[in-house]
Amino acid sequence: MNTKTILANLAYEFQTEKTLYSHEHFIRQTLKLAKKAEGKTLTNPMVGAVLVCTRNNQRDIIGQGFHKGYGKPHAEIEAIEDANRNGYSDLSRCTLYVNLEPCCHFGKTPPCTDRILSEKIPHVIFGTLDPFKKVAGKGKKKLLENGVQVEFGFLEDECRELNKVFFKHVKTGLPWVTLKMAQSVDGKIATANGDSKWISSEASRKLVHRWRSQFDAVLVGAETVMKDNPSLNVRLIRGRHPKRIILDGRLRLPDKATVVHDALRSQTIILTSESAPLKKIKLFRERGVKVYTFKADGYRINIRKALKKILYEEKIASVLVEGGAVVHGEFLKEKLADEIAVFIAPKLIGNGRPSVSAELAESIKRSVTLNGVTYSKSGDDLLLHARL
Amino acid sequence: MNTKTILANLAYEFQTEKTLYSHEHFIRQTLKLAKKAEGKTLTNPMVGAVLVCTRNNQRDIIGQGFHKGYGKPHAEIEAIEDANRNGYSDLSRCTLYVNLEPCCHFGKTPPCTDRILSEKIPHVIFGTLDPFKKVAGKGKKKLLENGVQVEFGFLEDECRELNKVFFKHVKTGLPWVTLKMAQSVDGKIATANGDSKWISSEASRKLVHRWRSQFDAVLVGAETVMKDNPSLNVRLIRGRHPKRIILDGRLRLPDKATVVHDALRSQTIILTSESAPLKKIKLFRERGVKVYTFKADGYRINIRKALKKILYEEKIASVLVEGGAVVHGEFLKEKLADEIAVFIAPKLIGNGRPSVSAELAESIKRSVTLNGVTYSKSGDDLLLHARL
Repeated sequence: MNTKTILANLAYEFQTEKTLYSHEHFIRQTLKLAKKAEGKTLTNPMVGAVLVCTRNNQRDIIGQGFHKGYGKPHAEIEAIEDANRNGYSDLSRCTLYVNLEPCCHFGKTPPCTDRILSEKIPHVIFGTLDPFKKVAGKGKKKLLENGVQVEFGFLEDECRELNKVFFKHVKTGLPWVTLKMAQSVDGKIATANGDSKWISSEASRKLVHRWRSQFDAVLVGAETVMKDNPSLNVRLIRGRHPKRIILDGRLRLPDKATVVHDALRSQTIILTSESAPLKKIKLFRERGVKVYTFKADGYRINIRKALKKILYEEKIASVLVEGGAVVHGEFLKEKLADEIAVFIAPKLIGNGRPSVSAELAESIKRSVTLNGVTYSKSGDDLLLHARL
Repeated sequence: MNTKTILANLAYEFQTEKTLYSHEHFIRQTLKLAKKAEGKTLTNPMVGAVLVCTRNNQRDIIGQGFHKGYGKPHAEIEAIEDANRNGYSDLSRCTLYVNLEPCCHFGKTPPCTDRILSEKIPHVIFGTLDPFKKVAGKGKKKLLENGVQVEFGFLEDECRELNKVFFKHVKTGLPWVTLKMAQSVDGKIATANGDSKWISSEASRKLVHRWRSQFDAVLVGAETVMKDNPSLNVRLIRGRHPKRIILDGRLRLPDKATVVHDALRSQTIILTSESAPLKKIKLFRERGVKVYTFKADGYRINIRKALKKILYEEKIASVLVEGGAVVHGEFLKEKLADEIAVFIAPKLIGNGRPSVSAELAESIKRSVTLNGVTYSKSGDDLLLHARL
């Protein structure tokens, strides 16, 4: 903030008899609104907006809204139209709060900056700049150039956290990846002869179904499908089904596997190599399953490239990787995981199948460090959450 | 409690204008006192005692004490003598509180019941009955037969928890065994090439040193000594050194190992098989190291028998088993572990050495269940504590 902005801000605060805190208060409101569209915005960010007016020395929200889904109106427009519906047609003395910088480009909808200007909203406050190249400070600039008072940088951590998926893919071209595993205290996901049902508690399994409904896709290796024949859908709670990605360089997936057979099979995406049997590719495609083939080192797909591809083609911006151990290992080794969630059940298995299978570290110093670790209870299990 | 006791108790409570709660209050005091001797009582229990008198309608502690160590006076005697020192020679209107039933047999010291009777203490309240055969209800009986009003069963869980070591060995003839391990989230105690320094945080390593000072002995396998050459003493905090037990059926322990070489070597106990090389046994014994030989299946010692032996011969009533994975596995398999403490460091190692190495479970249902699990933070690590 430069001196001019600070002075303007102080003047404004004096006028409204409120402290700076109130900006954070209203940005917090926008975050709450934004969150309502969790799991529905695809590659778009979650955005909420509130319009605030001073009446009888008090600041009140006169309109609010959020971006309800990919292709639908932006939060700013929703808030303006809500204010209109509430009988406020003149917004020339209002402040617009939004968690992300307003856009200034034509995408699926017209630029929000144009509408802000046409509504003569004099003051716009947002949480963080938009990392998306077509906006990235240009929205702010356009408003400033047209005489709008602009401030930003409120609850930045929370704003970025809410849209971690959006920030990730916009900056890197890769989806947000969370690894999920359920293991015993001694790090085993199955006994030596492969029994794995159920390591984690019902509460934990329900939580995983909730996550599935919030992620764009779940991903497992072919090995896991062959062993467990999972449905990878949402059953234990109410929620939308995620897309199902099967990493299967050799295309070993059996014809009968649930994921290529059930009613949701058109939501199944197989990532395989160009060396995979063409006949099988054709068979799956005829059933409506999507099969992407990649150049491969033998049958070994470059996962990074595959993720970029499905982000672009399938609008999959967030992926929940549910295993197995080799897949988890590959994501860790290739530094493709952003987050890890480990359910630790109060059991010891001894000899059995480890939760992570990969040559990750030659020494303890070079082992993979988990950051920002948090722990919570999930039924009888402990849930560890961390960033990579 | 029978009706007579209840009535007597009510009468007493009425007289002192206090509720039953006050019994628990004073038993809690005895536990606090008892705890002062943690790690010093060997096979004896930790016991505290307070003498309470009613003065000016208020109940005050006029004497208190605790059992300071094996062979030293019992808590009851300490409390009585403290009261005497404080100027109270007549205890005929006092109540004696003690966490464990007073003894009635000649051990290293005369029976406490005799002293209670000779001091004419009219009312004795204790936490739990003593499980030790020579006492086990007989102390209570002797007091009752001599007209003392006796009550017990206050804070029983806490009383048993404090003396879990004592209760264990008195009931089973086996020492209390805690398994301690430090691992990554994915259950590894070392990388594939054996690097293990340091998985856990300094805070965790300090805590382990505190435990060492509280346990009668630490135990590791020969493999761990050969790999890490640990000192197994107390350095990171101030405290007494525990005895060091090395489980070594083949007597592979190198001559140069610190545990058979340093100034504390007379505190080192080797458990080996009768098939171990006699020359080496002789060498170690000449240095002052204790070597116990056991009949063995090949070189495989019966750990249960070995633990019974050292409880009896060495007064080792509590053992902290620090590894390695095979030793932990054997204790789990033989159901010789009472408790487990796992430091989980925020790291992933992938392929490496697992924390528990043993065929423990063919199916998840048959895996080892951890009970009463609690979690706490220990530096950057999570500390899981549970009963087996």
